[in-house]
Amino acid sequence: MNPHFHALILAGGRGTRFWPRSRRRSAKQVLNVVGERSLIQATVERLKPLVPPGRMWVLTNHHLRDIILKQLPEIPRAQILAEPAQRNTAPAIGLAAHVVHAVDPAALMGVFPSDHVVGNPVAFRKVLRVALKGASGGRLMVVGIPPRWPETGYGYIEFPPGTKAGDPQPAAVQRFREKPALAKARRYVAAGNFYWNSGMFFWRADVLLEELRAHLPKSATLLAGLPRFGTRAFGAALTRVFPLCENISIDYAVLEKSKRVSGVAAADFGWNDVGSWNAVYELRTRDECGNAAAGETVCLDAHNNFVDARGKMVALVGVRDLIVVDTPDALLVAARTEAQRVGEVLKALEKRNRADLL
Amino acid sequence: MNPHFHALILAGGRGTRFWPRSRRRSAKQVLNVVGERSLIQATVERLKPLVPPGRMWVLTNHHLRDIILKQLPEIPRAQILAEPAQRNTAPAIGLAAHVVHAVDPAALMGVFPSDHVVGNPVAFRKVLRVALKGASGGRLMVVGIPPRWPETGYGYIEFPPGTKAGDPQPAAVQRFREKPALAKARRYVAAGNFYWNSGMFFWRADVLLEELRAHLPKSATLLAGLPRFGTRAFGAALTRVFPLCENISIDYAVLEKSKRVSGVAAADFGWNDVGSWNAVYELRTRDECGNAAAGETVCLDAHNNFVDARGKMVALVGVRDLIVVDTPDALLVAARTEAQRVGEVLKALEKRNRADLL
Repeated sequence: MNPHFHALILAGGRGTRFWPRSRRRSAKQVLNVVGERSLIQATVERLKPLVPPGRMWVLTNHHLRDIILKQLPEIPRAQILAEPAQRNTAPAIGLAAHVVHAVDPAALMGVFPSDHVVGNPVAFRKVLRVALKGASGGRLMVVGIPPRWPETGYGYIEFPPGTKAGDPQPAAVQRFREKPALAKARRYVAAGNFYWNSGMFFWRADVLLEELRAHLPKSATLLAGLPRFGTRAFGAALTRVFPLCENISIDYAVLEKSKRVSGVAAADFGWNDVGSWNAVYELRTRDECGNAAAGETVCLDAHNNFVDARGKMVALVGVRDLIVVDTPDALLVAARTEAQRVGEVLKALEKRNRADLL
Repeated sequence: MNPHFHALILAGGRGTRFWPRSRRRSAKQVLNVVGERSLIQATVERLKPLVPPGRMWVLTNHHLRDIILKQLPEIPRAQILAEPAQRNTAPAIGLAAHVVHAVDPAALMGVFPSDHVVGNPVAFRKVLRVALKGASGGRLMVVGIPPRWPETGYGYIEFPPGTKAGDPQPAAVQRFREKPALAKARRYVAAGNFYWNSGMFFWRADVLLEELRAHLPKSATLLAGLPRFGTRAFGAALTRVFPLCENISIDYAVLEKSKRVSGVAAADFGWNDVGSWNAVYELRTRDECGNAAAGETVCLDAHNNFVDARGKMVALVGVRDLIVVDTPDALLVAARTEAQRVGEVLKALEKRNRADLL
């Protein structure tokens, strides 16, 4: 593969919908909610055929850095950075672009969320080859996923009418569309040229830095003033400078404004953003009654339930469509259809000053 | 009160329907499922105005004796006996009658389950006065509870037509009726002279021993041959002899055959046999959403649930009519309507050789 390809793995999110297993120090990306490995470990494994760990970079926060260091021992420690403050994706990616560009002025960057699942790694690698082709040519490449249902929780990428999923050439991007209401989402799916925005991006580091200077000059200047990566002064300066950057996503800050955006109309590569416990239920193997369990269970007339309770026997009697997640200090019992609302539990706990459970 | 009145508290049951909190060494009667105290502690408290702890006797098994000794420090240790084998109520009561009769030849015995709840202690004491009156006169007294619904899980006592609940005189017992099917239970309730059999009994020890000799001669002879209670030889002999006794209830062995049975047609004294977690739910105070919890909860759109999870935060999201019982090694999530089936979980665990969870 391309010797200038660097992978940036974004791992600063909280994933509150995976409470009670997700906590400040054990966010979704470091949990093994789907397989044996954590989501971030699976992300690294998936990238290894394309980029050696020596060219992988992880951006996270100080709550999670220790556990990520442990989970990813193959990545050089200095390349697992903790953001001094949460400033959304634009400053984080800008920081990484500076660092990577300093190390390798010809760097091509791929930006990957750390907490998604890819069911078909072969198809995934095909997508990356198209994206890197566009990126090498100076484009800011986004990746669209053919929608499998009219999801209202994702942004959409509008390609020209007639764009075919799996096209081996970069496609023009007509417009980014924000999370739609259901009726609009249905029209997008019916139209065929609207794709889910995967949150994966590819570009040359120098191109991204140019675009940042053009569209987000304050943050660009702050980051450009940092001492060289690897020097003693770098860490202290970052702690001072980073919180002064704008709190904004790369989508809003750059992609929706830049004239250099192109996209990949990907074929389905089994992408799943694992947005809730119910998504985990859908991804897991189920028994003949439709129950999916991590841990041992006794099921009596119990159907289509999800259980995550490691080291504990769980008996389900006459219940269906439940999510049951047990931890030593907190237990969640939720209707599968309400899995999206788990974040509200954390708000209630915050109000009760139960920081110990967050 | 009567200085010859001795209370026998039967505490040998397992109460498997209270799994996972009930185990071999923590059966229902020693659990605090309803209030702060365990059910057997509440039973003793209820009896104290009528009989001092020095005249209380407890029959249990070797799994439970230690915890009962701890929970009931006021009862003389020697009076908390472990049955060497499970032989149902006839041999247990026969044994107690021998022991009590040896200590006090004029003893009047009251037999009390250890795991029931009484909501109205004043009415309860009135019932006992009627029962003791009949017992003093040489009758075997049973106690009937006016049925509040057509329960199919209890036996019924048929009194003469027109018998009034709360009659201060002992009433004739026409017949014992086994657990009926629903249609029959409905007829019983409609008829008005059929009462639930409470499992409480009152008699003179000498009268009960006579009736045992007449109706269960083998066990009666075995028990009569025991050395005197309190001697060294007693314990060893009991271990040898008790398992040879018939495995039969006092109802079948004596009460359904004896000509000396009478009953109390009791007024409702808030009796509840606490037959399942759902009965506990009914007995507990509920919040405005109908949820009853022992332990802290966060409820989002959750209604009519029962939670027993001490020392753990439980979040309920979009669920209703559930029973959630958490312990360190096992968790139960059941529909309230299926609470009766919890015993089946134990059968499944036995099949899997999970004796550690029984």
